[in-house]
Amino acid sequence: MKTVSLKLLTIIADEALQRRLVEDVKKLGAKGYTIEKAFGEGEHGGRVSQWEGENIRMELLVSKEVAEKILEKLARDYFEKFSVIAYLCDAEVLRGGKFL
Amino acid sequence: MKTVSLKLLTIIADEALQRRLVEDVKKLGAKGYTIEKAFGEGEHGGRVSQWEGENIRMELLVSKEVAEKILEKLARDYFEKFSVIAYLCDAEVLRGGKFL
Amino acid sequence: MKTVSLKLLTIIADEALQRRLVEDVKKLGAKGYTIEKAFGEGEHGGRVSQWEGENIRMELLVSKEVAEKILEKLARDYFEKFSVIAYLCDAEVLRGGKFL
Repeated sequence: MKTVSLKLLTIIADEALQRRLVEDVKKLGAKGYTIEKAFGEGEHGGRVSQWEGENIRMELLVSKEVAEKILEKLARDYFEKFSVIAYLCDAEVLRGGKFL
Repeated sequence: MKTVSLKLLTIIADEALQRRLVEDVKKLGAKGYTIEKAFGEGEHGGRVSQWEGENIRMELLVSKEVAEKILEKLARDYFEKFSVIAYLCDAEVLRGGKFL
Repeated sequence: MKTVSLKLLTIIADEALQRRLVEDVKKLGAKGYTIEKAFGEGEHGGRVSQWEGENIRMELLVSKEVAEKILEKLARDYFEKFSVIAYLCDAEVLRGGKFL
């Protein structure tokens, strides 16, 4: 099957950020997203602490360029203030042209 | 640790398709699957619209050959009628022989 | 954006194992984790059977060395007794130094 090489961008954040994140990723070129509820622990100022409330795990299939723009936005407007995790994996996407 | 290189195939679809998808992927050689509830937005006829109801995010660890067969099945029998996303990532799987 | 190459380690297990898994991965060097509820089917003694109860899907961003230690622990203390799936993917992580 013909597939398209895209970036799978995963963002983990407090669910209070959901609306804002959705708006931002759409503005920066994401054609869709998938969200699951999640919970966990992470580093805050050197200690591992239970996250308050519920988290979301958002996944986006995007071009390298859109991924880059979203990472820049996260680094600039989110990372100082919020506990946000973001990482990229390579994905071979069926009907991947839809996401470009 | 010894691991086996497999394909991680992720399928995102309406939860109404769950039973049918499970039957199809088993018939085509998947030895198991993991499903999480999800929600999101995607492209329908050019516009980004909230998906109706709940979605599922199904993950399969399969050989390249089984992945290929499942992608062909999705392209042939699902993609015209349903909002389905499918993508492959590379995975190094512990005790991976179980999945072949 | 500058990212750090890490391993995304996914562990799927019975939710009854959650507390024990969390303790073990922290002891072995994981700086955090994300968990989602999941369900599915897998191989037990050659047959595909519905898993009893609920499962968890735990994700960790770790160095190759920590990933290796956790896989060894799973192989030694979990795989004989429990239905556990574990696999590694490559991930490019924003602010990845936090996870080392």
